[in-house]
Amino acid sequence: MTRFSIFSRIPCPRMARYFPIFHWLRFYSRRDLNGDLFAGVITAILLIPQGIAYAMVAGLPVQMGLYASILPPFFYALTGTSRVLSVGPVSIAAIMVLTALSTPEVSALGNPMESAVILAAEGGIILLLMALFRLGGIVKLISHPVLTGFTSGAAILIILSQLSHVIGVQFKSCEPELSCLATTLTNFNATALLLAGTTLLIMLCFGKPLAYVLERLSFSEAIAVGLSRCAPILAVFGTSTAVYWFDLNGLFNVAVVGDVPAGLPRLSLDFIGSPKWQMLLPFSAMIALIAYIESVAISKVVANITRQKIDPNQELIALGGANLMTALSGGMSVAGGFSRTMVNFSAGARTQLAMLVAVSIVTIAMLFFTAGFYFIPKATLAAIIIMAVLPLVRLNSIIKTWRYDNCEGASEVVTLLGVLLLGIEEGLAIGVIMTFVSHIRKVSHPHIAVVGRVPGTEHFRNERRHTVQTWDTLLLLRIDESMTYHNIIFIEEFVNGELTQHPDARSVVLIFASVSNIDATALEVLVNLNKELSLANIKLCLSEVKGPVMDRLERTEFLAQLTPERVFLTTEQAVKTLLD
Amino acid sequence: MTRFSIFSRIPCPRMARYFPIFHWLRFYSRRDLNGDLFAGVITAILLIPQGIAYAMVAGLPVQMGLYASILPPFFYALTGTSRVLSVGPVSIAAIMVLTALSTPEVSALGNPMESAVILAAEGGIILLLMALFRLGGIVKLISHPVLTGFTSGAAILIILSQLSHVIGVQFKSCEPELSCLATTLTNFNATALLLAGTTLLIMLCFGKPLAYVLERLSFSEAIAVGLSRCAPILAVFGTSTAVYWFDLNGLFNVAVVGDVPAGLPRLSLDFIGSPKWQMLLPFSAMIALIAYIESVAISKVVANITRQKIDPNQELIALGGANLMTALSGGMSVAGGFSRTMVNFSAGARTQLAMLVAVSIVTIAMLFFTAGFYFIPKATLAAIIIMAVLPLVRLNSIIKTWRYDNCEGASEVVTLLGVLLLGIEEGLAIGVIMTFVSHIRKVSHPHIAVVGRVPGTEHFRNERRHTVQTWDTLLLLRIDESMTYHNIIFIEEFVNGELTQHPDARSVVLIFASVSNIDATALEVLVNLNKELSLANIKLCLSEVKGPVMDRLERTEFLAQLTPERVFLTTEQAVKTLLD
Repeated sequence: MTRFSIFSRIPCPRMARYFPIFHWLRFYSRRDLNGDLFAGVITAILLIPQGIAYAMVAGLPVQMGLYASILPPFFYALTGTSRVLSVGPVSIAAIMVLTALSTPEVSALGNPMESAVILAAEGGIILLLMALFRLGGIVKLISHPVLTGFTSGAAILIILSQLSHVIGVQFKSCEPELSCLATTLTNFNATALLLAGTTLLIMLCFGKPLAYVLERLSFSEAIAVGLSRCAPILAVFGTSTAVYWFDLNGLFNVAVVGDVPAGLPRLSLDFIGSPKWQMLLPFSAMIALIAYIESVAISKVVANITRQKIDPNQELIALGGANLMTALSGGMSVAGGFSRTMVNFSAGARTQLAMLVAVSIVTIAMLFFTAGFYFIPKATLAAIIIMAVLPLVRLNSIIKTWRYDNCEGASEVVTLLGVLLLGIEEGLAIGVIMTFVSHIRKVSHPHIAVVGRVPGTEHFRNERRHTVQTWDTLLLLRIDESMTYHNIIFIEEFVNGELTQHPDARSVVLIFASVSNIDATALEVLVNLNKELSLANIKLCLSEVKGPVMDRLERTEFLAQLTPERVFLTTEQAVKTLLD
Repeated sequence: MTRFSIFSRIPCPRMARYFPIFHWLRFYSRRDLNGDLFAGVITAILLIPQGIAYAMVAGLPVQMGLYASILPPFFYALTGTSRVLSVGPVSIAAIMVLTALSTPEVSALGNPMESAVILAAEGGIILLLMALFRLGGIVKLISHPVLTGFTSGAAILIILSQLSHVIGVQFKSCEPELSCLATTLTNFNATALLLAGTTLLIMLCFGKPLAYVLERLSFSEAIAVGLSRCAPILAVFGTSTAVYWFDLNGLFNVAVVGDVPAGLPRLSLDFIGSPKWQMLLPFSAMIALIAYIESVAISKVVANITRQKIDPNQELIALGGANLMTALSGGMSVAGGFSRTMVNFSAGARTQLAMLVAVSIVTIAMLFFTAGFYFIPKATLAAIIIMAVLPLVRLNSIIKTWRYDNCEGASEVVTLLGVLLLGIEEGLAIGVIMTFVSHIRKVSHPHIAVVGRVPGTEHFRNERRHTVQTWDTLLLLRIDESMTYHNIIFIEEFVNGELTQHPDARSVVLIFASVSNIDATALEVLVNLNKELSLANIKLCLSEVKGPVMDRLERTEFLAQLTPERVFLTTEQAVKTLLD
């Protein structure tokens, strides 16, 4: 294995920080090159039909998906911290663009292509601004269950949107009446359905069955992987040849992609002067946020396997820049695509050089082969999209989440239903709010255990779960949460409630082992509680107070009111002292 | 002490639940009656000028404040759970009503009296709905520092709004120009200023100085308290007699209260048909929320002293009903007033019978003595208001909060400045959002300690704060916060970071003593972390897992992946087992 290095040292450390490509190029080996070349070809074979298909999902001319597959992945390759993420048009962003473009206000403005470009530009600027203010942490607003519910819902919407292409009818012209819907359905195009069915069959056969056969025939793994990934291009090639040969579009009215302008995208900044920026802002912010979250999630899956590191802030820069690039070249919004990244990785990609290879192939295709795109049937593309997004519908995850935590399972279901019934943005917003509310609810009702000593040890455990030693004059309460304005009333009432049940108690020890923070509201309540208990001749004591909490309590009058012998390092010390 | 009981037993337990008056009437004693009668008279003496004054603050005719002092406190006396809370017009609600009525949209609708009645009715309905859905917990959205900043800011606004009455000029006609302002100020009314000054002097002298004198003269405490509370009525009586006698309003242009319609309020539901309901909704919601929070806070202060219990949900019903009553009788929004409640309590009130006495006196005054209100100078009322709200300006609280927690101190300052510069509602909203964001920030960056064994014990403590025993092959991490989607990435990165600093570590023990909850997102990250560490041949172990957390983990595959011998009851066991 020979190792050749393009740069013997990093030209400038600062440059390497913003252009991670200089990091890995230093240690680039011939073996890396082999993997990257092969993966690049395979990814390009997927990138072209996906570019066309996702533009179709977004209701945009196909070249906008293809343009988005050139400059943006190129830019990401230079600046991204993930070595295998495949940036380009993605299904979720595509359906979100469609949603934005179909709202009455936006569609009233006309020129959807310009609107799509502005969505991408604005999203890019938002991501760059987030990088500037180091706001990558905003992803913490969305929990996994909500994200899963959201992607499942969006994927179902995508599948539904593609069904009309599969059966070759247009629902749009139809009023939403059942009788009319039935008429439309009976007028389905059998040829389109046949083409879609063939595509599905090819894609299914090229999955596990082909892998099994190739393994039996002792093909090398690389070739097996490569062949199995060729299904989409084979389906596209086969069905469009059939359309061309038998004139299916003329004779049987099969919808095809049609003319795709040849040549590279023309760079343009015309969109800057448009008055649409303000109206599109909420949509572009949502698209940018989801694009970023999905991309980082995908990057992390792969980075965890290869033990590489993703820098969330640099990802904001890379994805923000990629979206500005797509706007500059007249393409649609981009993000890291799950299926493409997985194909890229499993085909052996080791660095972003694979994506540079893929970009070159897309560029060559745009220059010389656009004429060949004319006869690609839309039914085939719809079938490819459905197969691509099907793994995103993870309904079993709902059951899993529900079993672990009913509240979170409910958030997942509500997000999914919200996306399906109310709309993409609305569903996500409801999910985020619901998780938030349930989080606050949980924090507001902390677990508090009445504890006793495990006989013969210095350990104190919940008296309901363990056989423990307790004392009438002594109440030991372990508070299992930080004390904040959300929950301090609950805690106060719990303490008072337990005291009425333990009328002989002369001391209450609050075990602070789990208390990491006491906010100003909680402190005030504690001060009052101490005063009230003093009047009732009951001593309030603390034990196992953590360092940071103690540091802050020392700045208050509360500790002075609790005379020092009422704050104990361990609960055992408290018990010994107070029982004396 | 004879004890006489009006009801020998509670007529119907259900009724007693919604009408707490039946509870305390059962055990009513003659001594209670003495206290209540005296306190009722004293409170009535305060209630009448406050009713007039707060109507003035809200920019409403004075009878609206007086009407609000009859039916609402009567209703609260029957239904409220606080025995001494004095419900009626209050300063903060008054300034909030003024804010609502002065917004351009609302003032454009005309008829401010109708708008004020609708504000009260709508607030009442909101509180009753909150009671229905048991949403009393909504108060947890507002922390003490924010509430203090808010009341301080609102009190400053009230004082500023009264200054024009003190100096006897009208700012409203003046353009906001400094030269004009100066002209207005130089045109101050010396007589008004003199009356206000006299009032302030009387109120100051009737405070500590009088109490001291009476104590020296061995007067009984009750009489001393009673006399010292008479300052407002004495000032009102004295200054209005002076106005009447010397014709100050005619000769020196001193502004007076003027005609107050005699007689009891006419009950009316005319306001129901008004089209203003929707526009006033945000204002009434805010007023209702603040009225509720302030009332419960005041009730609790007194209830804690007398060891009585406040039921937050019943308070929603009582205050909601009281606000409906005020609307029905054409009054302004009501709440529990701090100064009045304190006067009521310190004058010896033992039950709500004191307020029933006060209500009777107000009723008699409305029937027979309204003519006497004509000559009350506005300057006197302004001085009384200023003295009443001055204790609400608690700027020293900011310093105290800041010293304890900079973030919370900042929230308090921002709320106060927001109220002063942006407006009442805006300031409160900013404060609530700011506390929320800083809460999330804190939770997102949990404290994690690398711990070691305190030599010779089974205790494990932070290695930075204590001299402890550590081992190269063993990394012990105590996670001081529940693991949620807000902070799990931080925790994961912390663990990975510590592992790079402890390259020889073969086991990581996560000490879960402070972990009360692991949400679905965090669980997913833990599962992945365990897989990655397994690949790197590092054992992930848990210790001190709490019962509820363990119960839920047992439903997951995570525990199966961690073979049983990697979950330890105590950290000591973990250390012994893993070092073998």
